[in-house]
Order: sequence, then C-alpha cells, then structure tokens
Amino acid sequence: MTTAPLRLGIAGLGTVGTGVVKIIQAHGELLARRAGRPIEIKAVTARSKDKDRGIDLSGYDWAESPEAMARRDDIDVFVELIGGSAGMVRSATDAAFATGKDVITANKALLALHGNALAEEAEAAGRVLRFEAAVAGGIPCVKALSEGLAGNQVTRVLGVMNGTCNYILTRMQSAGLTYDEVFQEASDLGYLEADPSLDVGGIDAGHKLALLSCIAFGAKVDFDGVRLEGIERITIEDIHRAADMGYRIKLLGVARMSGRGLEQRMTPCLVPESSPLGQLEGATNMVVLDGDASGQIVLRGAGAGEGPTASAVLSDIMDLARGLRMHTFGQPAASLEELPRAQSSVPAPYYMRLELLDKPGALSKITAKLGEAGISIDRMRQYGHAEATAPVLIVTHKTTRDALDHALADFETTGVLATEPVAIRIENV
Amino acid sequence: MTTAPLRLGIAGLGTVGTGVVKIIQAHGELLARRAGRPIEIKAVTARSKDKDRGIDLSGYDWAESPEAMARRDDIDVFVELIGGSAGMVRSATDAAFATGKDVITANKALLALHGNALAEEAEAAGRVLRFEAAVAGGIPCVKALSEGLAGNQVTRVLGVMNGTCNYILTRMQSAGLTYDEVFQEASDLGYLEADPSLDVGGIDAGHKLALLSCIAFGAKVDFDGVRLEGIERITIEDIHRAADMGYRIKLLGVARMSGRGLEQRMTPCLVPESSPLGQLEGATNMVVLDGDASGQIVLRGAGAGEGPTASAVLSDIMDLARGLRMHTFGQPAASLEELPRAQSSVPAPYYMRLELLDKPGALSKITAKLGEAGISIDRMRQYGHAEATAPVLIVTHKTTRDALDHALADFETTGVLATEPVAIRIENV
Repeated sequence: MTTAPLRLGIAGLGTVGTGVVKIIQAHGELLARRAGRPIEIKAVTARSKDKDRGIDLSGYDWAESPEAMARRDDIDVFVELIGGSAGMVRSATDAAFATGKDVITANKALLALHGNALAEEAEAAGRVLRFEAAVAGGIPCVKALSEGLAGNQVTRVLGVMNGTCNYILTRMQSAGLTYDEVFQEASDLGYLEADPSLDVGGIDAGHKLALLSCIAFGAKVDFDGVRLEGIERITIEDIHRAADMGYRIKLLGVARMSGRGLEQRMTPCLVPESSPLGQLEGATNMVVLDGDASGQIVLRGAGAGEGPTASAVLSDIMDLARGLRMHTFGQPAASLEELPRAQSSVPAPYYMRLELLDKPGALSKITAKLGEAGISIDRMRQYGHAEATAPVLIVTHKTTRDALDHALADFETTGVLATEPVAIRIENV
Repeated sequence: MTTAPLRLGIAGLGTVGTGVVKIIQAHGELLARRAGRPIEIKAVTARSKDKDRGIDLSGYDWAESPEAMARRDDIDVFVELIGGSAGMVRSATDAAFATGKDVITANKALLALHGNALAEEAEAAGRVLRFEAAVAGGIPCVKALSEGLAGNQVTRVLGVMNGTCNYILTRMQSAGLTYDEVFQEASDLGYLEADPSLDVGGIDAGHKLALLSCIAFGAKVDFDGVRLEGIERITIEDIHRAADMGYRIKLLGVARMSGRGLEQRMTPCLVPESSPLGQLEGATNMVVLDGDASGQIVLRGAGAGEGPTASAVLSDIMDLARGLRMHTFGQPAASLEELPRAQSSVPAPYYMRLELLDKPGALSKITAKLGEAGISIDRMRQYGHAEATAPVLIVTHKTTRDALDHALADFETTGVLATEPVAIRIENV
C-alpha cells in the first residue's frame, strides 16, 4: 500500500468544511498513524475567500472555483461540501471523475436526485463516490448498512433522520408551545435550512431515506418514490393527545420491500413513548436497520452539526486513505434495480383526531363509517369541551392505508366534521 | 479487482459456524452481487463429522483438523469459529498466516490473550485478521469504531457487552427472583458458557472491552489491565433498592484515557433507569462510543445467537471479498502503544448498601467515617426492619474510588456492620 499523502481538495467552507479542516489540523499525526499515510489538504475553495472562519488556511492553495479545483492534478480526492444539487456542484463533480479523482460528498440532495448517474460515472471512471456525511450526521449508518450488514437481506430501514423536525416536535411537547412558536425559535437559532420546507416538509429526511433504501434493497435511488408528509400540520393538541395515550409523534422514515414493490415514506408517525424512538429528544437522529440474520440494529447519534458531520466526512477520507474502495451504493451501479413503487402493504393502527359538531348522533355517524370501511376501534375518547365542537380521539385496530383513506373520504359525507380530520399512522417499533 | 470466488475454509460448526454456512447457502446471489465475486465454501471442519446440523455439507471438503484446513492451498480465508484460546486454535491460526491466508475469527478469548502477537504475525505475512463477531454479536461496532470514527480522538468506550449477564439482571428485576434462581434458569436455557464464570464473572465481556479499547486508544491489547468484577454478588435486594432510587444495575464496561493512563473496567454499575443503557432489556447489547468530533454514538443489537453472530462474520467475509483490507486494530500493530494502567480517575457517585447492627449511634459512626474520608452524602434511606439489623442505603456525591476504598476500610473499625457492605459505582450515562 502506498505511504504517499492522500491529497484533498475541499470545496465549501461552511460549518462542515470548516469542521473537516479543523480535524485534519488537530489530528494530523493520529490520522496518519491510522491510515498509514498523511492526509494533506492541498487546496480549498468557497464563495468568499476573505471571510474569517477561525481557521488558518494559509497553507492551502485557494482554487478559483469548485470545478477548477476538481481538475487540479495535485489532488486525489475532491471533497464536495458545498450543498445543493445545482449545476455548479454537478459539473464540478463530473470534472472530478473525468480527471480521475475520487469524490466525497455530504450532499444528500445531489445524490437523491442524481445518484444513479453519478454512481455510474464514478464506476466508468474507476473512481469511488462516498457519502457517509449525507445521512444522519455523525452516525456511521451508511457504513453499517453497506458493510456491517452486507451479509443480510435487509427487511426494513427506518429512522428519525432530520434533527430539526425532532427538535421542533420534542420542544413543542416539553415547553407546551405551538408549532409556529417553535418554528420561529428554530429559525432564530439557525436550525432551519434557507428553504425551511426542506426540513419541516420532510424533503431533507426523504433524501436520506432514499439513499439508505437504495443500499438496503439494491434499488436505484428513487427519491420521487418517497411518500412525503411534513410536520407542518402537527398541532400541540395532537402531541398532548398522543402523549395521553402513551405515544410520541416523530417524523419517521420507513423503507420496506414487499412482493408489490418498494415502499418508501417519510411521514409523521406515532411511536410508543417508551420505545427507543419515542425517547429520542432534541436534534438527535436514530436509524434502525432490520436484517434477516442480524436482527434489529439501532444506531443513535447527533444528526447534524460541525463535529458530527465532519466526523462522517473523515470516515470516508480515512477509508480512501486506507485503500478501502467500495461501490457507491454497495454494489455495481448497473446492478441496481428499478423497483416498482408500493403503498404501505403492512396494516397498522392509526391515531385519528376529529372535531365533531356538537349534534346528537354525530359520533355514531363516524363510527358507522369506520365500520363500513372494515376498520375497528381499539380505543376512543371524547374530551369535555366548552366550544361548539367536540374533540374525539380514536385509535383504530390495524388497518390498511387504503381502508383508512376510504373512511376519511366517507367522513366528509356525514356533515358532522367541524374541521379536516387528522390521521397519523402508529408504528409499534 | 478480481472476480474470482473468495474461497473459505470454515473451522467450527457450532451455532455460529452453522449460521455462516446457512447465510452463504441462502444468499449466494445477493452476496456475489454486492461483493462483485462469489463467496465459496471450499472446506469445513469440526469435532464431529457425522453430527446432524440441519445443513447440507456435501458440497464441501471435510478437513481432518483446523490446522490441516488452514494449510490447504485452495482457500483464501481461514474462518475460525471454534472458540477458546487453546493450542489447537492458535496453531491453526499461525498456520493460516504462514501459508498466506487471511483469518476471520469470532474468538474474543484468543484475541484478548494473543491479539498483539497475532496482529504482528498477520502483518508480517501481509495478511489481515478480522474479528467483528468477537465483540457484541450482530452490532457492527468494531467497524463503527475503527472505520466510522477513524477521524476522532475517542474519549471513552462503554457498554453492556454480555447478554447473559444482562438477561440475568433484568430477569431478576422483572420476575423478582434471586440471583441463584435466575442463574439456574439461564443454565437450563443454555445461555451460559461451559465455564459460567466467563459470563457472570465478567471475563467474556472484559475480553470484548479490551479489544475495543485497543482500537479506540491505539493501545496494545491489555486484558490483564481490565479491572473485573462479576455480577455474582448482586442481590435482588440491591436491584430493588436501586430501582427505588431510579437506577438499574448493569454489568458495564468502561474504557477511558486520562493523563495517568488507560482505565479499563468491567464491573456492575448503576445507570439511570430512563437512560438508553438503563432500558436495555434481556440479552441485548449496547456499545456507546464517545468521539471528540462525532459526539456520542450509541449502537444497540443482539449480542449473541446464530443469526447476529453469523451476520458479523459475514461482514468480515464481505470486506475481504470486496478487497477492503485493514490493520487488525485500526493501525499497524507495531504502532500500538503499551499504556500505563490507571484506576478510574473520574470521580463518581456511589450506591452503598449497608446492614447495620441495631445499636444506638450505629448510623452516626458510619456517616462520620464517610465525612473523614471526604465523602458527602447525597441521599440516605433507612428502611423499616424486623430483624436485628437495619438496612441502610446511601448515595454519595461524587468521590474517587480511592476515597471510597478508604471509607469502606474504616467502616470495618466501627463494629456496627452486620455484613460486608456493597458499593456500586453510579454512571450517569
């Protein structure tokens, strides 16, 4: 194995890029001992050259653009920490492969949208594309899934993969604040993406799920196949009611294969409050991998932030320095299958919150519609109320999403609903 | 990269070996797609050739002995699943390296006792030695630590690494049974090693901790440096009392570096019942890795059993098939340091259970001794009692192990102790 330095070009000096530079500066000797060769930053680039980032960049060349850096012949690895899936990032990555560089990225949007093409490009060029930092921050879940569980038929991948959403939901509960209040708080704290719908709309987490399910099931990345539902409609009332029944609300991603195809969804779910997922507080992430041999493997850690994300980038850098070279999604890109998309085929109980007009027989009309849809009721509560509408909570027995959608449509015909009903799947994980 | 089959010789066809054969038979196509080459079992060996293991071995050569198999020139990898650190296993492993084979083992005892020599042997022969299955069953914690956290200065490794002990402790609590009753139950269920002190004495878990701390801190394996204390002295009373105060008792391994050296201990500890470790039920394992950049990474899964352990063996097999080749302990064996052994330097609160003779002034004599040792009391409870002795529980504020040992020695001089006091460290993790 070579003992020559592994030469990096780092594009993007935001939180993550700065964190990567810091680790390499602080732990140079440790990294070299572990890798058997030094890790060397050759060049960096970012939007602004003069911004004070609290780190000394004087030892590195400044490249004019990501693409110019990707084409340099004195780097081995192009480390893309710019973010976004826009033209500049894509063209720089293409240039890196075309000129024989390996690529490490933290960019879930890029991979969720262009992952298949990029994986093929990398392989055609004989290079590798790694992305540990794109999923669940500091948790080495890409490695755990693609290498640690490589002997398993993976049956399910699930998890909480957006720290901001989990922060909002747990903060609503602990402080008794409304969604809007906590959203503002998160915004003030700088927790939200420039476009907040990436976070609260579940898009960012959906990107991550699409990448994991690709590895897990040998499927082409199919982000458009992820059923997305954000947390914007979750009210403090839902959180309180769910808690009354022993549940917590999480933005939960689930990817599962069935005979009908690949189910991928990133939606609010109720999970038992005593479960590991139920107890996940703040911005922490959790990824749960079910393998046919391994059983359930649970991984927990910080889902974002300078140190954790930089740690994940370093994991990829160290792999390359050690000569550990893998296919992007755990198998040759050409062998990834285009799988049919499936709705959830696994029945589940649902939590429903209804506001009924305070009329005689209102509740019986609703329960009749449930019965007609073949849905039976596990638990029901009607709360005391001062207003003209009565809040009713129903937890159903297991039912399919189809039956549920049917019942929800039928509810409309009863004329007893004061507002649109809320229905949230319960995952007993 | 080669597309030739990776040829295995499997020594040992107990639970784990059988599990490995089953996975390779069931998932041949999946494994080949992921590895880019077929995984092929060439030969197997075990103590008895004729035993019915419920698997078809007719396609494989039967080797006369592990060593004979290790020397065959038609295998690439010697998979050692025999167990024990005895001469036969060691000499077969030596033979494998001497004749140019890589070695995969699930054998923690072998590595905890001979790991330094074997790692040097492997490297001198240009071969690799991998052992994911030796630590925490199906949890890919060796990989997470040596590769996933490769960019981190690891500050602490801790965990519950013996499923049998955790089963016994949680079963005592849930069923209200004594240690002896549950020990017998575990024995009847086949959960215990042939020599049960390997489990309940903490030795097996200590082996695992020694391997992880070697990777984490770049230290030579030093199993003799692990302070070991088993769970044999834990009574149902301790479990109840700890629960009263919001704690659970776990056999907890901790490895930590300080200025004074490397602290390694595998001892019963109290952990908060609401913590992830506190909620770990049954035979499940949990490994907690603290990295300076990653923050805390928690890994949970089955610590033993056919499927999970075989899954970990397959992780190593797939790494080799994919050409992923690492130093045994994450860096060259020659660079591993011999670190001084340190007692725990981090002060902690302690739980103490004392049986005091029912004499006036008994309690004040004890509290005086604590005061003299510089230990202050956080909480104290004296329970109502029918016998001539009074059970007293004390939770101290943070103190050093030295001060605690000093106080315990002083207690003896008071003449008010009816039995030997129990003192268990509280880890607020």
